[in-house]
Amino acid sequence: MDFEEHVVKSQPIYDGAIINVEKQTVRLPNGQTAYREIVHHSGAIGVLAITRDNKIILERQWRAPVKATTIEIPAGKVDQRDADFHHAVIRELNEEIRYTPKHVEELCGFYSSVGFSDEYMKLYLATDLEPVKDKLPRDKGEFLEILEKTQAQAVSMIKNGEIQDAKTIMAIQHWQLMQK
Amino acid sequence: MDFEEHVVKSQPIYDGAIINVEKQTVRLPNGQTAYREIVHHSGAIGVLAITRDNKIILERQWRAPVKATTIEIPAGKVDQRDADFHHAVIRELNEEIRYTPKHVEELCGFYSSVGFSDEYMKLYLATDLEPVKDKLPRDKGEFLEILEKTQAQAVSMIKNGEIQDAKTIMAIQHWQLMQK
Repeated sequence: MDFEEHVVKSQPIYDGAIINVEKQTVRLPNGQTAYREIVHHSGAIGVLAITRDNKIILERQWRAPVKATTIEIPAGKVDQRDADFHHAVIRELNEEIRYTPKHVEELCGFYSSVGFSDEYMKLYLATDLEPVKDKLPRDKGEFLEILEKTQAQAVSMIKNGEIQDAKTIMAIQHWQLMQK
Repeated sequence: MDFEEHVVKSQPIYDGAIINVEKQTVRLPNGQTAYREIVHHSGAIGVLAITRDNKIILERQWRAPVKATTIEIPAGKVDQRDADFHHAVIRELNEEIRYTPKHVEELCGFYSSVGFSDEYMKLYLATDLEPVKDKLPRDKGEFLEILEKTQAQAVSMIKNGEIQDAKTIMAIQHWQLMQK
């Protein structure tokens, strides 16, 4: 079956710092016309960082879209400072949690909300963490509290709603499955 | 520690069918000013639907943001037709996969990409599926292919990159953990 939608017209809506927004007019497989709203976003990484005493490192920070603090794994955009996704992992762990991992492994890649956005994230496992020697500056306006939790604690934080972030839930599930 | 950002100014950027976009000027905890780009989205549901012979129901469909077909669990926006999230589950399963579940259970709730969007999704388990008697019309412009996969097949589809959708990976991992 051919599902392809052909773009008939593309209208730029917004050119921002983090996102670009585009409205497309597309021709559907049945010949009809429809509109698609698309939020373009550069790639990102998220890290399941496990300490030597088998705890996950989490961050509490303010998130403007939900007007509240959230608890999430370390994560960030892949930007012009990064040669590749792997480099972004090392940089973000330095900036945010002040550790350098001796072991880094890619777990999976995914679109965070493919219905309206092309944001693609790779999830990594980082272990054998050592304190960084040369601390990189944090992003301006980034305020973080670092938490370390056991697997049982992290799982119960999903159940009681303290953790409500997709990539973080996915990472904790992955951690549970590693020990099956 | 007080992380709260105070909104100093809100500028509407785009008022669309699926998303609204807003640019905020915020005052940070240290008194400095920063900008936040926010994509507002109504709530959504995703469903881990398991057949009587223990297969997951998946959908292949075209996704404009990534210019390709993706493989995902049944999902959709909670809209004005829905009294609540649970109603959206029943409606979406009817429209998309033509099954009615006798058992529906909420698994977890999450923000799909909390860095720039308030999209909140609830993930449900649906079992004891029976063919629907009264088929609801599909959304205009929705073209779907339905797949049924064993757990081993679904897990290998994540590993080989055929499945790259966050909510779908989360649902499959949940399914694996149910059988620990």
